[in-house]
Amino acid sequence: MPYPFFSRRLRLGMIGGGPGSLIGPVHRIGARLDDRWSLEAGAFSSDAARNAEAGRECFVAPDRCYDDWREMIRAEASRGADRLDAISIVTPNHLHAGPAIAALEAGFHVICDKPLAATLAEADAIAAAARASDRLFALTHTYTGYPMVRQARRMVQEGRLGRLRIVQIQYAQDWLSRALEKTDNRQAGWRTDPTRSGAGGCLGDIGTHGFHLAHFVTGLRAEALLADLSAFGEGRVLDDNVHMLLRYPDGVRGMLWATQVAPGKGNGVRIGVYGTEGGVEWFQEQPNQLRWTPTGEAARILERGGADDGTGRGYTTRTAPYHPEGYLEAFAQLYEDAAELIAAREENRAPDPIAALLPGIEAGIDGMEFVAGALASHQAEAWIAREHWAIRD
Amino acid sequence: MPYPFFSRRLRLGMIGGGPGSLIGPVHRIGARLDDRWSLEAGAFSSDAARNAEAGRECFVAPDRCYDDWREMIRAEASRGADRLDAISIVTPNHLHAGPAIAALEAGFHVICDKPLAATLAEADAIAAAARASDRLFALTHTYTGYPMVRQARRMVQEGRLGRLRIVQIQYAQDWLSRALEKTDNRQAGWRTDPTRSGAGGCLGDIGTHGFHLAHFVTGLRAEALLADLSAFGEGRVLDDNVHMLLRYPDGVRGMLWATQVAPGKGNGVRIGVYGTEGGVEWFQEQPNQLRWTPTGEAARILERGGADDGTGRGYTTRTAPYHPEGYLEAFAQLYEDAAELIAAREENRAPDPIAALLPGIEAGIDGMEFVAGALASHQAEAWIAREHWAIRD
Amino acid sequence: MPYPFFSRRLRLGMIGGGPGSLIGPVHRIGARLDDRWSLEAGAFSSDAARNAEAGRECFVAPDRCYDDWREMIRAEASRGADRLDAISIVTPNHLHAGPAIAALEAGFHVICDKPLAATLAEADAIAAAARASDRLFALTHTYTGYPMVRQARRMVQEGRLGRLRIVQIQYAQDWLSRALEKTDNRQAGWRTDPTRSGAGGCLGDIGTHGFHLAHFVTGLRAEALLADLSAFGEGRVLDDNVHMLLRYPDGVRGMLWATQVAPGKGNGVRIGVYGTEGGVEWFQEQPNQLRWTPTGEAARILERGGADDGTGRGYTTRTAPYHPEGYLEAFAQLYEDAAELIAAREENRAPDPIAALLPGIEAGIDGMEFVAGALASHQAEAWIAREHWAIRD
Amino acid sequence: MPYPFFSRRLRLGMIGGGPGSLIGPVHRIGARLDDRWSLEAGAFSSDAARNAEAGRECFVAPDRCYDDWREMIRAEASRGADRLDAISIVTPNHLHAGPAIAALEAGFHVICDKPLAATLAEADAIAAAARASDRLFALTHTYTGYPMVRQARRMVQEGRLGRLRIVQIQYAQDWLSRALEKTDNRQAGWRTDPTRSGAGGCLGDIGTHGFHLAHFVTGLRAEALLADLSAFGEGRVLDDNVHMLLRYPDGVRGMLWATQVAPGKGNGVRIGVYGTEGGVEWFQEQPNQLRWTPTGEAARILERGGADDGTGRGYTTRTAPYHPEGYLEAFAQLYEDAAELIAAREENRAPDPIAALLPGIEAGIDGMEFVAGALASHQAEAWIAREHWAIRD
Repeated sequence: MPYPFFSRRLRLGMIGGGPGSLIGPVHRIGARLDDRWSLEAGAFSSDAARNAEAGRECFVAPDRCYDDWREMIRAEASRGADRLDAISIVTPNHLHAGPAIAALEAGFHVICDKPLAATLAEADAIAAAARASDRLFALTHTYTGYPMVRQARRMVQEGRLGRLRIVQIQYAQDWLSRALEKTDNRQAGWRTDPTRSGAGGCLGDIGTHGFHLAHFVTGLRAEALLADLSAFGEGRVLDDNVHMLLRYPDGVRGMLWATQVAPGKGNGVRIGVYGTEGGVEWFQEQPNQLRWTPTGEAARILERGGADDGTGRGYTTRTAPYHPEGYLEAFAQLYEDAAELIAAREENRAPDPIAALLPGIEAGIDGMEFVAGALASHQAEAWIAREHWAIRD
Repeated sequence: MPYPFFSRRLRLGMIGGGPGSLIGPVHRIGARLDDRWSLEAGAFSSDAARNAEAGRECFVAPDRCYDDWREMIRAEASRGADRLDAISIVTPNHLHAGPAIAALEAGFHVICDKPLAATLAEADAIAAAARASDRLFALTHTYTGYPMVRQARRMVQEGRLGRLRIVQIQYAQDWLSRALEKTDNRQAGWRTDPTRSGAGGCLGDIGTHGFHLAHFVTGLRAEALLADLSAFGEGRVLDDNVHMLLRYPDGVRGMLWATQVAPGKGNGVRIGVYGTEGGVEWFQEQPNQLRWTPTGEAARILERGGADDGTGRGYTTRTAPYHPEGYLEAFAQLYEDAAELIAAREENRAPDPIAALLPGIEAGIDGMEFVAGALASHQAEAWIAREHWAIRD
Repeated sequence: MPYPFFSRRLRLGMIGGGPGSLIGPVHRIGARLDDRWSLEAGAFSSDAARNAEAGRECFVAPDRCYDDWREMIRAEASRGADRLDAISIVTPNHLHAGPAIAALEAGFHVICDKPLAATLAEADAIAAAARASDRLFALTHTYTGYPMVRQARRMVQEGRLGRLRIVQIQYAQDWLSRALEKTDNRQAGWRTDPTRSGAGGCLGDIGTHGFHLAHFVTGLRAEALLADLSAFGEGRVLDDNVHMLLRYPDGVRGMLWATQVAPGKGNGVRIGVYGTEGGVEWFQEQPNQLRWTPTGEAARILERGGADDGTGRGYTTRTAPYHPEGYLEAFAQLYEDAAELIAAREENRAPDPIAALLPGIEAGIDGMEFVAGALASHQAEAWIAREHWAIRD
Repeated sequence: MPYPFFSRRLRLGMIGGGPGSLIGPVHRIGARLDDRWSLEAGAFSSDAARNAEAGRECFVAPDRCYDDWREMIRAEASRGADRLDAISIVTPNHLHAGPAIAALEAGFHVICDKPLAATLAEADAIAAAARASDRLFALTHTYTGYPMVRQARRMVQEGRLGRLRIVQIQYAQDWLSRALEKTDNRQAGWRTDPTRSGAGGCLGDIGTHGFHLAHFVTGLRAEALLADLSAFGEGRVLDDNVHMLLRYPDGVRGMLWATQVAPGKGNGVRIGVYGTEGGVEWFQEQPNQLRWTPTGEAARILERGGADDGTGRGYTTRTAPYHPEGYLEAFAQLYEDAAELIAAREENRAPDPIAALLPGIEAGIDGMEFVAGALASHQAEAWIAREHWAIRD
């Protein structure tokens, strides 16, 4: 824990994440891991029995375990000294906007899972609420929490790669190779259902991660995209494979492959960034290493916490080098960042600049526009410039 | 969290682990990660100011933050309903025996870092106390907490490798390649100092991990060893490189290399086990994979949580496959195991058999005898049978 | 050498490949490695001194070492029993058509380096000559000679991957990251010069390899492409980075990245093919392994010559498994295939079906149309269907 | 081909290597690959029909295809201008001494497969003949021919690793995991038969490779060893698993594992050398890379032909970097070295110093003493100093 010590644990409430949830427990571990948060309230499920079960297993006091998230926000807003500091929203995409807006309006910081919402209209409404509020709005783009991703970003910023030329992004999985949504798999169910996921399938679920990651590492905002989407799964409505070209400023060019139907791919988030003076490559499944090749020299394997590239560390970490950190630590980093940002506000000081890397509402809107742009490009079979990605009435 | 839910968080106290400690924070994160433990008391340092600082940062109530571990055990033993359940001991090796014995005698479960003690006499005293007590005594051999290590063990037990033939063990580091102990590096300081570490350097610090890991995976107890030790570091008294041959029952043969002076090695725990019907290999720095080769077939890469080998899972885990777990999750597993063993006692039920894999006092004594045996063999330049490893007066 | 024994070494002549050539020596080693060819004549360079030097170093008789390739074809055509069987053409792209057509017309088999020519018109002329001739025309798409590439092809054909869905192709290098063509680097010189290379830079030099490889493994012919080309090198006219989307029949989708400016990439030919029942992945720099994942099962590492996938071997090889073959052996395979095809003709028998995998004139025309299509797509910033790739007047 | 051009191909004869031979074809390809040798005569098999078959397939003139190696040496010795330059001996171990001595005495250079002989007495006899002769005697320790092995050697010599401390050697295979010698596998047959292999099984076959490799890279001569041998295969007489500790001068310590019964291991030659200033690691199955870690810095991946470590190249090579060379090229290097050594003699000049790396008679005797020492140590269950390895009457 490299950030300044804060005198208390922050109080967290959670909406969603009841029994059977995949991401709920991940948020809870993430919040707990660095000991800056305490889960004090929850509306884990709209089913009373399931909600109670989750509350019990999370050691949440029964009177702070709410069957309705509206009730939670209302009740917690009126509490005194032990009032919640922040609310995490881990529901399916179509259930982000309501709780997020209400929480912000009630004065809570919000930590929201990605993508921001199921529709652009919902996303805009959240953004309006976030901008109108002085509360923190964080979006959990997990992969930005990995130390070596942050190191790559630092190296780009410090000029280690020279002028950038190429960005290659992959997010490849195989878990939807078969039509799991026809079984009782809850994850496959909602993620392939446009009424709950929104109009993007793979695009919204993991494509947004890849797109954001490229922005995070390079600092560049894409200017245009061209997408070719497929729905390979039998009877599947939403895309499960995304092939995309991207254009960034100053001639930088990108490719993005996101898929959920490539057998042999697990959670294959890969990014390669190449410039005039060097290239870096990172792979989520071996996340403690960053491969760095200065132009014309031998490749170097930078290790989390080990010898660095000379620019200094662009990240914080919690274990010794070669004692691998993983996905949960990346998630914890986001909660750690949020805690530092909140603590700094309370203490009237500038936060640690690393904490300021935490993705927020801009990343959320960016991702939603990306989804809209990709769908538009796919339909038009043409390049779409960013200003035309999202058509708002 | 696959183990049965327990109705409360267990209360943990900690001895050692104050400011500058490497392993103290790891134990605390390990205890916290799965939400089965709550740190309620501590004697983190015998320096009052440092102790208070640690207590504050761990949110331990000031009145349960003790400058003397004896006082902590005494005071906590007389508390009522919020009495500690267990005490973790994370001091340097020579400070294990006192607290461990006192804690056991006061009726606390004990979770002790490895190696068990600095001397065999201390170790025997702890063992006597542990055997006289009905409390749990756990030894944190971290690498046994990794899912794919447990899977390897399961595969051996289920006969997937046939009759075993060969065990290859490496634990290779490089952090003592230079004489760090001459700087202000606290870790290097005590680990190279025989008065605090005991007579084994690398041997006790990491050799014991490797030796235990081989036992854990194969179920075999070594019958004889032959060791060649070196102290390469300038002015170093204790060994920093261990070359060893091992003999196991039924003709099984082993090799063990432990080193702290091999540049390029980080925390390179590797184990390969080879039998008539197949081989498995695991490497700590990429811990989510287990390479399995059935004799005469193509190698398979088993992934934590992914497709298994047909024997079923020999482990529990907390993230989806390909979302890597790491060192902290392995450590958390040991705390999770301990919690399940304690909960099962309170609920008068058999614990989950996976929790029973948690190393205990036998592993501790075994490790101490291993150190003694290796030192004896090195001196004699000869094979030493197990019955002669530890000469007790 | 798995193909039937042929009673003599075939006689080879070479055009190009003089001092300083990169690919000339590779062809010569390839021809020599399996002992089916003997280099008997050459027009290695139009510079008499350089030509003589090459001839001497290749042990070619001085009277069969010609300063002009036209003279070589003329003279050799009129020889008797020791007449050349075949002529290899290893000149820069713009010097393929003349020798190839003349050699075919003079009755020689032709082995031509890729891409087929510098322009589509030249390519069509070669194709016309090849189709009018009964001689063998082989195009050295090196990567099709690798055993595990052929195994991947076999697995696709045998249905091991089910219905195909996705093809991912990379051919990534870094050697042109700096403007080497401004130095005296001969390779960089002609490859970045449109008058010698043709209108495609990276596109023709390595993009054609990737495009052909995808066809070779999948058996599919692309129906449309969309390309985004860049010339990143300072002052560079021809593309040095290719981003491309591809559409194949039955909804199969592809991506192709070819680059010469990505620091850290050496000769990174990668292909991944994914279907309903499994995926395979191959990487040229570790060419003896093929990673195969049957849908829902653990990944398997197939080794050249080792345990196979149950479909039988789709390739021939010359060393024991785990004794790595490399680039020269892949090249040798093409010469070996050509020898078998020629021997089978002379012996009036069907050739070994594996030898029939050798790429020929169709692959050459296909590659040229691919280059034309990519340039057209880049200019139009649009998808181009195959029928519009090559506009012939 | 980096060595000075020589005006003719050297003439090679071969003893052994008939139909079914594993290593015969490897020698022939190795000799052919760089075009410095021409196979002109052979005594491939003592079976006349098999010998004739081999001769025909190697395009050896019938009158130089001899059924008896004695006859070959006699006849070739009396030829004039086209007399053989050198003879390769690729028979099983027990058939090395006769031909080697006769060939040397008849004035031929000799290239002999390893280990040098089946018995120490035979080895001494060869050595005596070699020392009495002015002819070249080369021993084909294949792995010394790999470029990155030579680079490792250069780096040690140039001081890049500082003072050496540790040498780790593995040569792990699995092909004898089952009792193949009970099938009609010829290789398994003679290699597990003491009358043809000598007293060492795995020890002689591959242990000698590993032992020599350590010497080659470090320049150190072992002073003592301790071995633990096993014969795991059912009914097997000779060792198939070797566990060994080694002591080198100045406190350098080594371990060697050689096995033929570890499922999942192919041809796993690995060497790691660690000193005060850095470590290097090489693995035969990915031979084009050398992992180099300067103490305290990030690991670097040195690529054959790519950016070097600053000491300059310690090897020669024939393909561009990242176009992998393999086992056959390593073998070819030995023939290339031999050719250069012979050419330099004829031209009265010093050979290229890289060619002088070719292992010779000393390596052969060293390997035989190593086998004897290991057997003695195993029997004595004790360290054996080098002066006691080989007991000569």
